Order: sequence, then structure tokens, then C-alpha cells
Amino acid sequence: MAASPLISGLMEALRTLPGVGPKSAQRMAYHLLERDREGARNLAGALTAAVDKVGHCQRCRTLSETELCTLCADTGRDRSLLCVVESPADVEAMEQYTDYRGLYFVLGGHLSPLDGIGPEAIGLDRLEALLDEGEVAEVVLATNPTVEGEATAHYIGELVRPRGITITRIAYGVPLGGELEYVNGDTLSHAFSGRREV
Amino acid sequence: MAASPLISGLMEALRTLPGVGPKSAQRMAYHLLERDREGARNLAGALTAAVDKVGHCQRCRTLSETELCTLCADTGRDRSLLCVVESPADVEAMEQYTDYRGLYFVLGGHLSPLDGIGPEAIGLDRLEALLDEGEVAEVVLATNPTVEGEATAHYIGELVRPRGITITRIAYGVPLGGELEYVNGDTLSHAFSGRREV
Repeated sequence: MAASPLISGLMEALRTLPGVGPKSAQRMAYHLLERDREGARNLAGALTAAVDKVGHCQRCRTLSETELCTLCADTGRDRSLLCVVESPADVEAMEQYTDYRGLYFVLGGHLSPLDGIGPEAIGLDRLEALLDEGEVAEVVLATNPTVEGEATAHYIGELVRPRGITITRIAYGVPLGGELEYVNGDTLSHAFSGRREV
Repeated sequence: MAASPLISGLMEALRTLPGVGPKSAQRMAYHLLERDREGARNLAGALTAAVDKVGHCQRCRTLSETELCTLCADTGRDRSLLCVVESPADVEAMEQYTDYRGLYFVLGGHLSPLDGIGPEAIGLDRLEALLDEGEVAEVVLATNPTVEGEATAHYIGELVRPRGITITRIAYGVPLGGELEYVNGDTLSHAFSGRREV
């Protein structure tokens, strides 16, 4: 490499971003240094501010720079509904694409005993405390449709059931806009067994 | 968006990186905040250090944090050869893929009169001064094979010619590994007219 240490260092640092390989990192570094130093400074500031100040919401555990996130602090949301998701990005997706108006609980992952990720690591003690406050009437399980997500949903279901709270799971099935022939077998099998009368 | 101002601000700032759209920016921001705060801090530091300290090499104009870049400072390079390229990334590419052992001159763009980019903006006064030092015996034109790159190469050729210095241009032709049938017409036409006896 002909690049100087600081430029190489910048490329190296950019590679910590997900989806950025050596070629993109090089392109980004040169772009910032040649054409957008203001943008680079701005990005450095945004990174530092976010890392220093963003923590987790005390109630739903999503990323938040305030004690309660904007959703938990919003008195207009339906507090009888609690949607359990794996990550803050899932909250974003639900907010963007569904008309769900309840609150969330963010696990920050899924149960994975082999990696030492047990119930407390994904905040299930906190979830139980929340349910014991008595406001929640329905828990919507929206973990990922993976083996681990399923196992986690099942485990949470067992926690919720004795409390007499309704438990629902978002629907599985063939995704809209796809072609049946290319949908994977498990999905199609779920879609068939979950068929509904029209 | 349910994201808090600092998180949204970080996503916004990440979008200044070339090739990063809203979806990737979101993924990067959450990845850094949830799983790699150390990497985020490190990136902020690398950005600040690079922006503050990286300037241009006094001789070849490439990005460099020292007065002379590592290549210009390297006494083992052949000073009779000068390769003219558009950007620092082109220097990297030449160093990585060719066995060129001379020095470079980095234009930092190409002539573009309509955008007000004239000879001085791409450092041609500096190039002339360099040629007048008398060390250079051959100028290798390696600007991009675009209309602007061509025009720039032609213009530089006219500057160099009266000084009695050899001028060469890197070869155009069909790229290796491609299929002739998919190569664009201009390239094929150049490859044909530039054919050589084997």
C-alpha cells in the first residue's frame, strides 16, 4: 500500500462498519479526504456523541439517549399491548410498516445457551417485572423466524401464560410479491398449515 | 422514525459515505451502538486524525500527512519516470497491480472548463515546474479512459512535447477475463486499432 499511516488507519477503521470491505473502505477514505472533509468531521462528531450519550431505555431496553425512549414516553400509545422484538431495528421496521400503536420490549438478541446468553442477558427478568405491573393485556411475539427466535418466543410464551395475559405471534407465510415456486420449503409449509378461511 | 435524535443524526452522518443509503446507514448505526462502541470511537478518532493531518504531497500532490509522500521520499524509485493520474486511488491501483517503479503526479481530477476546472486547478503549473527540473525523461499518461480524461491527457501531452520528453499512454483494449461479445463498442474499436504484432 502506498497510502500513509493515517489514511491506512482510516481505511482500517472504516472496515469495522458492517458490509464495508477493503475496496469500499478505500473509496470512502479518499472520498472524505478529497471531497468532503466537512462530512468526515461531522461523522466523527456524530459517532462520538452517539457512543457517549446513547444508552438503553429503562422500560423497553431499546437504544435511547433519554431514560425513557420516545415511544415509552409517548402517552398516546396503547400500554395494554407489548410487542417483543429482538433489536431496535425491528422496532423501526414495525413502526414504519405496521399500524401497531402499543409499546415494545427489546431483547437485544435471542436465547443462546451455548454462547452463554440466558434469560437475564436478554432482559427477561425486566420483562417479567414489566408484566407484573399489570398494564399489559396482550404480548405480541415478534422475534425473528429463525430457530433461535422461535425458541426464544416459546420460552417467553411460557413466562407469560401463567399470568393470564393473551399471547400472539406475528404471522408466518409466503412474503408478498414473491413467487410461490421460489419460496423456501419451511415457509411454504408454515403458510399452508397457517391457512385461513377467506 | 422511532430513533432518537442522536441515533438519527448518526444515520444521517453515515449517509455522507459514498455507497451508503438509508438502510445501510441504519444497519451501521445499530451495529456500532449495539455491538461495537469501541470500533465507533476508533473510527471517530481515525476520521479526526486524518482530516486534521492529511494534506497533499508537495511534489506529486497525492494525499499525504508528510511534506513528501512515502513514494516521493523513497530514494529507490526511478525519478526519470513520471506517471500522471487523476486521483490518489489511481496511485494505489498502479502500485498494487503494475510493476511501475517511477514517481507519480496526481491531478486531483481532470480538466473541465464548464465547471471552472482549468489547468491550475489540476496543478499543471506545478507539473510544468517539475518537468523543468530536468529529471523526468518519460511521462506516462494514465488518466481515466473517459472523454474528460482523454482531453486532459491530450492537453498535458501538448505541455510535455516541446520539452523533448518522451510521452506514453497506458494501453486501451479489451479487459482481461471479459468476453469480447460483451465489451462495449468504443473499447473494441480501440483494441482493434491498437493491435500489435505477436
